Amino acid sequence: MVDDGGLDVVAPAGGAVRDLLRATPGGPVDLGKTEPRSTPGLPDVEVTGLDRKAWARRQVALVGRGLARQQEMLFAGAKADPGAGRRVLLVLQAMDCGGKDGTIKRVVGAMNPLGVHIRAFGPPTAEELRHHFLWRIRRALPPAGYLGVFNRSHYEDVLVPRVQERAPEDVWRPRYAEIDEFERELTDSGVVVVKVFLHISHTEQARRLLARLDDPTKHWKYHPSDVDARARWDDYQAAYADLLGRCGTDAAPWHVVPADRKWYRDWAVAHLLRETFDTLDLGYPPADFDVDGERERLLGTAGLLKVNGS
Amino acid sequence: MVDDGGLDVVAPAGGAVRDLLRATPGGPVDLGKTEPRSTPGLPDVEVTGLDRKAWARRQVALVGRGLARQQEMLFAGAKADPGAGRRVLLVLQAMDCGGKDGTIKRVVGAMNPLGVHIRAFGPPTAEELRHHFLWRIRRALPPAGYLGVFNRSHYEDVLVPRVQERAPEDVWRPRYAEIDEFERELTDSGVVVVKVFLHISHTEQARRLLARLDDPTKHWKYHPSDVDARARWDDYQAAYADLLGRCGTDAAPWHVVPADRKWYRDWAVAHLLRETFDTLDLGYPPADFDVDGERERLLGTAGLLKVNGS
Repeated sequence: MVDDGGLDVVAPAGGAVRDLLRATPGGPVDLGKTEPRSTPGLPDVEVTGLDRKAWARRQVALVGRGLARQQEMLFAGAKADPGAGRRVLLVLQAMDCGGKDGTIKRVVGAMNPLGVHIRAFGPPTAEELRHHFLWRIRRALPPAGYLGVFNRSHYEDVLVPRVQERAPEDVWRPRYAEIDEFERELTDSGVVVVKVFLHISHTEQARRLLARLDDPTKHWKYHPSDVDARARWDDYQAAYADLLGRCGTDAAPWHVVPADRKWYRDWAVAHLLRETFDTLDLGYPPADFDVDGERERLLGTAGLLKVNGS
Repeated sequence: MVDDGGLDVVAPAGGAVRDLLRATPGGPVDLGKTEPRSTPGLPDVEVTGLDRKAWARRQVALVGRGLARQQEMLFAGAKADPGAGRRVLLVLQAMDCGGKDGTIKRVVGAMNPLGVHIRAFGPPTAEELRHHFLWRIRRALPPAGYLGVFNRSHYEDVLVPRVQERAPEDVWRPRYAEIDEFERELTDSGVVVVKVFLHISHTEQARRLLARLDDPTKHWKYHPSDVDARARWDDYQAAYADLLGRCGTDAAPWHVVPADRKWYRDWAVAHLLRETFDTLDLGYPPADFDVDGERERLLGTAGLLKVNGS
């Protein structure tokens, strides 16, 4: 049950979030230009008794209801026309503690789990390493009609090998072009790709890691290697700056979501998804059977005379 | 956001739902003994301004919160001890319109989608038919730490071939024993199997099919073969009566959930899952690293001095 307190969805200020947050392709993206605690597009709404955090959380729940309906229409359309292969793929990338899991829980969790296809990518297994880096990615693509979510993705393969120096540059650098090619193949086959980098500050990461250490119910989320990776913060940011500028095509653009404030992050990703679904111009497919004829057949079966109130 | 209206979870009346609804193994189950509009175990609670339907829906949301936490503990435990392989598998079976999708949406949807692994089984594909009937089932099992949900299951293979006479009895009958063996293998390897038959009446099915025909946004859920299957209602009920009695072992019992009332169905399945998780005696695993030492290391990294309020 969602308590919407009588609120309606308010559109982002200054245009679509997907335009406001879109990374500029070309050279490396200047991440310093996006303040992780900023809230681009958040409208200035005054609601008595609600601060903007509480207001944004209710907006996420409201947008989520609409997303659930849009997702159902996507699903219904794919059932009627499987050949079109239409589906949406949300790619989430972030530094440790950047909020990928929280975004999935809050935003994707508002949709019907039946139509959602979530895949997480950890360090490659021995079997995965024996294949091309896109092999495990291709196997994890959502079926037609689904919202797919990648919790980490093929972008790990231009991050970790580079920063941790696990592969020479002539191994990881050609992957940018391979990724462009792969994503073009996806969009050509009906997949709408939404790529999101959740951008947190160095300070916020420390705060969240500390919170995990301070709370025994969060110890399972902590790993000592998180601090090792943190020591390479600048190298990771540089690698992100490159991939965000290098692999943001018109067909599959990157979005940089300021993510120090969890409620803003969820609000922004919910609107990004809503705007993406809106471009699909979805509706319920017409019946491919004779509705009146089927009603006759159904009424001819026993049992209906006994129908009474619920 | 869940509006709990200040309510607490109220335990089912007369004992655990999993005992109240458990199918008696042995001979065929007498489905006539379970009234599809009945509400076994529903406590008689009076809350001003809430009818029992609205009350039950709020209870489902409340139980769902607890389930989300239990599921997280299961996930955390599996991360700490993958060898134990602990996971939960909810198997949902029903006649058409029995409410499998609705149950998943309402009950499973209350949990974190990150820890849920849903698989639907349609008519076997050409490739699946070339393999043993359990081949596709084994490939769809949830990983350790997950709640798996089977939307239909291996039980279709002792229903459709029998009722539609697509296979001779000496093909489908030995499958009962194979299923018992398979499920014992599952429980021996750490899978807790919860099997649920959503039991609707012949009349309620007609009402729901008619609702699908009357609402253009539901036409995509309707298929003319639904009326054909409805014509074999008694045969399907007999096949269910057999499998419910035949394949309900102590390790993997069947539950018959009266399902004409959707709110009762959701309430009962939510409690069934809660009771199942309770048997696992879950908790958060202890840290497998030196917490104080890690805090020292983290505080030694730059960035923390700038920590300020959120």
